[in-house]
Amino acid sequence: MNDMLLQQTLARIKPVDRSLVPAIQAHLDDLTKPPGSLGRLEELAMRYALAQGAARPRRGGRQIVCFAGDHGVAAEGVSAFPAEVTPQMVFNMLAGGAAINVLCRHAGIDLRIVDMGVNADLGTPAGLRDCKVRKGTDNIAAGPAMSEAEAARALAAGIRLADEAAAAGVTLAGTGEMGIANTTPSAALFAAYLGLAPEAVTGRGTGVDDQRLAHKVAVIGRALAVNRGRCATPLGTLAALGGFEIAGIAGYILGAAAARMLVVVDGFISTAGALAACRLAPATMDYLVFSHQSDEQGHAGVLCAMGVDPLLKLQLRLGEGTGAALAIQMAEAALKLYDEMATFSSAGVSGAEE
Amino acid sequence: MNDMLLQQTLARIKPVDRSLVPAIQAHLDDLTKPPGSLGRLEELAMRYALAQGAARPRRGGRQIVCFAGDHGVAAEGVSAFPAEVTPQMVFNMLAGGAAINVLCRHAGIDLRIVDMGVNADLGTPAGLRDCKVRKGTDNIAAGPAMSEAEAARALAAGIRLADEAAAAGVTLAGTGEMGIANTTPSAALFAAYLGLAPEAVTGRGTGVDDQRLAHKVAVIGRALAVNRGRCATPLGTLAALGGFEIAGIAGYILGAAAARMLVVVDGFISTAGALAACRLAPATMDYLVFSHQSDEQGHAGVLCAMGVDPLLKLQLRLGEGTGAALAIQMAEAALKLYDEMATFSSAGVSGAEE
Repeated sequence: MNDMLLQQTLARIKPVDRSLVPAIQAHLDDLTKPPGSLGRLEELAMRYALAQGAARPRRGGRQIVCFAGDHGVAAEGVSAFPAEVTPQMVFNMLAGGAAINVLCRHAGIDLRIVDMGVNADLGTPAGLRDCKVRKGTDNIAAGPAMSEAEAARALAAGIRLADEAAAAGVTLAGTGEMGIANTTPSAALFAAYLGLAPEAVTGRGTGVDDQRLAHKVAVIGRALAVNRGRCATPLGTLAALGGFEIAGIAGYILGAAAARMLVVVDGFISTAGALAACRLAPATMDYLVFSHQSDEQGHAGVLCAMGVDPLLKLQLRLGEGTGAALAIQMAEAALKLYDEMATFSSAGVSGAEE
Repeated sequence: MNDMLLQQTLARIKPVDRSLVPAIQAHLDDLTKPPGSLGRLEELAMRYALAQGAARPRRGGRQIVCFAGDHGVAAEGVSAFPAEVTPQMVFNMLAGGAAINVLCRHAGIDLRIVDMGVNADLGTPAGLRDCKVRKGTDNIAAGPAMSEAEAARALAAGIRLADEAAAAGVTLAGTGEMGIANTTPSAALFAAYLGLAPEAVTGRGTGVDDQRLAHKVAVIGRALAVNRGRCATPLGTLAALGGFEIAGIAGYILGAAAARMLVVVDGFISTAGALAACRLAPATMDYLVFSHQSDEQGHAGVLCAMGVDPLLKLQLRLGEGTGAALAIQMAEAALKLYDEMATFSSAGVSGAEE
C-alpha cells in the first residue's frame, strides 16, 4: 500500500509549464517599479506561479511540518548533544517554546510536529502526529538505517501529510526536523547521491570539536563502505543511509510537488530529504525553493552541486524549519507584491524613457 | 534653530554600553538551541539590546519613513525614468500601491511619506508630511545641491520625525526614499566621503544603458570637481553633493540613534544618508543595521569600505525602503525569539555534553 502510494505520487509530479513564463513576466514588469528591481522576490513569485500552473495564482495557507526521529548512529558519539534531547525538544515544540514555534507564530505559519521515529514513548500529547516507524534507525556505520519497506512507509507518511495539507488549502509548504545526530545520515546521503567525499559534506552539527569532527568523517566513511551494495537505487540509498525524519521530509516534498505547492526547504537535513525526493522524481526540483545556506560546513558545496542558489545566508544552523519559516514569510511578501502592487497604467506612473 | 537642534542631537548620540554584552549573550545561550545556531538573528537581538541599553529590551513600534525629493542633476539625463515619476510615485505610495506599501502592510510597519523637496505642487493630500525645503536641488554637476542652511533644515526635519517616532513608542526604525536620479548624488557622496573613484560607486540606477552609465560617471566626476572646495566638512559635503531626501534620511537616523532606536538602513541611497549621519556623529554606527546589499553596482564596495556586512542579498534595487521592510520583519523575528523561546532549564532540555 505504501509502495503503491509512493509510485502513484511519483507519477503525479510533472515539470512545470514554462509556456506561462511570458505572461507571469509581463505582469511583474507592469508593476510600478523598474523591471527586475525586486530581484529574488520576483523569482519567488515566478516559481510560485509556475508551481501552481497559473499566471495569477491563488494565495493559500502556509504550513511547516517538523519531522522528528532518532538515529542509531548517535551511539558512535557524533553529536555534541545526548540523544534524549530529541524527545525533550519534541515536547518543547509541543509547548510552543522552540525557535520554530516563535517563527511560525511570527509569520502566521501552521506548524505540525510529527513523530517519525523518536526513541522514546511519547504518549499521545495534544498536537503530536504519530507516524512512528520505530524507535530510531539502526546504526548506519554497521549496516542499513532501515529496510526499504520502512523507507517506503516513512515516505508514504510524508505524502499523506502533504495530501492533507493540499486538501486544507495549503499552497506554500515548508520542511523542518528534529533529531539528534541527523547531520550524520544527511552527510552520508549527500556523499552517496552527489559523489562527494565525506570530509566535503561533514560539519560540526550542533557543535562538535575538531577531534569529534574527524571521528564523524570516519563514521560516515564506514557507513558508505558498509552500505555500498545497498545504494544502487534512490530508495535503496535513502533506506541504507537516511533517517525516518529525512524520509518523512522526502515524502512530504514529493506529495507537495504532486499537489503543485511551492515547497520551501529548510537547511542541511531538509536538503538531504529534498535531494532524495529529486532522485526519486527529478521534476520535484521545479517545486522547490532552498531557503538558506546553513552555517553547517558542506551545505554550500552541496547546494552548488545541486545547482541551486539559496535565498538567505544568515549563518543559521539550528534546523527545525527555522530557515524555511523566514523564507516562507519572504515568499508571502513576494506573492503580496505580485497581487497588490499598482500597475503603471492603473497608477498613472510614467515608464522608462526610450 | 535647525542648527541648534542638529548640534543638540549630535551631542545626544553616545556609543552603546558594551558592558551589557555578557548578560545579553548569556540569555541568548540559555535559549533552547545550540549556542550561536541562530546566526545573524542573534546578532540582530544583540544590536537591538545594546541600542536600547538593556539586557532585556522592550519591543515597541516599527516605522519606516520614506523621504521624497527631486534632483537638479536629473537635467543631465542620468536616469532611465523622467523626473515626473517622483511626484507620481509619491501619489502611488499615498494610494497604497507601491512596493513599500505592500511590504509595510505585510510586516505591520507604520509607513510615513515625507515631501522633502519634490519638484511639484503636491497639495495637501492625506498622509503626506510636508517638509519641503524647495522644489528640487540644484544641479550638482554645476555647483552645490543646496546651501548648508538648507541641509541643516532637511536634517532637522528628519530629526523631528525621529523624535515624534520615539514619543510614539517606535523602537525599530527604517529608512526609505523616492527621488528620480538620486543614485547620482548618492554615488557622489560615497566618492567624497570614502575617497572612492566615481566609476567604483556608480551603477545603472533604475536601468540606464552602457552609454548613459559612462555619462553618469562623467557627471559625478564633474560634481566632485566643481564642489571640491565645499567638501571640507561632513555638513558641507552633504550640502554640496546630497539631496533633500538624503539629508532627511541622515537626520532621521541621527534622531533615531539619539533616541536609542535600532535603525534599519535600506539600500544604496539610504546608505548615503547613513554615511552622512556617521560622519556627523560616528557613534551613530552602533545603532545601524544594513538591511541588504543592493544590486546597484558599487553598493557592495561601499558597504565593505564602511566595514559593514549587510543582512540580505536579494538583488533588490528599488529603494523606497523595501529592503528595510524585509529586514525589519526579520529583526522583529529575532526579538521575538529572544523574548519568547524557552530556556534550557525551563523546558527541561539537556545541554551539550562536556
